[in-house]
Amino acid sequence: MNFKVIAFDAYGTLFDVFSVTALCETRCPGKGGALAQLWRSKQLHYSLLRSLMGRYEDFWTITEDALVYAAAFLEIDLAPGTRKDLMDAYLHLSVFPDVLPGLEALKASGTRLAILSNGAPAMLAAAATHAGIERLFDAIISADQARVFKPDPRVYHLVCERFDVRSEDVGFVSANAWDVSGAASAGLTSFWIQRVAGEPPEQLDHRAVQTVSSIAALAELSKGRHHI
Amino acid sequence: MNFKVIAFDAYGTLFDVFSVTALCETRCPGKGGALAQLWRSKQLHYSLLRSLMGRYEDFWTITEDALVYAAAFLEIDLAPGTRKDLMDAYLHLSVFPDVLPGLEALKASGTRLAILSNGAPAMLAAAATHAGIERLFDAIISADQARVFKPDPRVYHLVCERFDVRSEDVGFVSANAWDVSGAASAGLTSFWIQRVAGEPPEQLDHRAVQTVSSIAALAELSKGRHHI
Repeated sequence: MNFKVIAFDAYGTLFDVFSVTALCETRCPGKGGALAQLWRSKQLHYSLLRSLMGRYEDFWTITEDALVYAAAFLEIDLAPGTRKDLMDAYLHLSVFPDVLPGLEALKASGTRLAILSNGAPAMLAAAATHAGIERLFDAIISADQARVFKPDPRVYHLVCERFDVRSEDVGFVSANAWDVSGAASAGLTSFWIQRVAGEPPEQLDHRAVQTVSSIAALAELSKGRHHI
Repeated sequence: MNFKVIAFDAYGTLFDVFSVTALCETRCPGKGGALAQLWRSKQLHYSLLRSLMGRYEDFWTITEDALVYAAAFLEIDLAPGTRKDLMDAYLHLSVFPDVLPGLEALKASGTRLAILSNGAPAMLAAAATHAGIERLFDAIISADQARVFKPDPRVYHLVCERFDVRSEDVGFVSANAWDVSGAASAGLTSFWIQRVAGEPPEQLDHRAVQTVSSIAALAELSKGRHHI
């Protein structure tokens, strides 16, 4: 591995979005798991639909819209306080256990690191600060700059523009298989963190050059102990 | 209602895609329902992802890719014969019971009718012929002409181009709430056939002008018995 920049997806890759599940369950007993799951899938759905419709709204808005839909679908009466608390949970998500040691090892090797996420700038800044990982990144880049969401290639190219590098000089890391394909299709070298054991890759034409189990394992690769 | 053309979505609106569930269950006992559901959601997911990535493949290809993914995810070993039979089921789907009487009533009123679907041309022709509804349509229009899928506005505008009418002269009917929003966003007048009782509308900015329970109910509206 010899990248000028390694960019990471945020939600599901660095931040565990299902850490909101516990709060969902506390506030909506018996329906918390279903709410968290539908909320997440609807959030992704709206990001794709709005991008394709040419009706961009930022990810904070979409996340709240998805919560409102999921609650309505599941016939959950969301009190205003609950709605606010669930949204605020997005600002202080947990990170996966491999994130801090993995990022520190990569950073120590001299590689520039970035976040490239669909998240709105304020959401990303708040979550990274809360998790204490903000200091490790040279840039936190939001799809908001392109006013369209991943996997539109223009979003992945924001990394090239920000660092003035070519797409082949960028490594991209995501736990979302569709995001891995999107980045590869846009010309970046993609790595898939397979956080769900046995999950198959997407049936799309562009795939990861390597699948790893954690960011720490990726850092090992970068030390050249393994060749790609 | 005074439209020059009324265009209908196909899958989920005219054709009941869950009529493949029974075949899924016969071929994959115990996992048929899960296979049918994941197959359908992955099919929609791939249509959105490929559109946004600028990597169009037609809906037949996407449908087969989605089947392969769904089977892999559910750890179902799809024999080649089973795979072919499940795909072929898309060519002879059932229509919902309100479709034939509803379309005939609309046709009798003199309105031109069309199908506007993400489906590949051969899939749509086969399903419409099998169901005996092909004769009722003045055009069967596939997103394949635009090489991108709904809800990209270019797909909805294919109806305007085909009939040389303005978007406000086109009524669009879909049971898929996201499709209703996409058509409305593109300037068409949308009607939502709410086939799942209690399903909420999408939290998108553009909605149906009217929600109806069936195509027959839509035909009643067109007779002017109800005003919109």
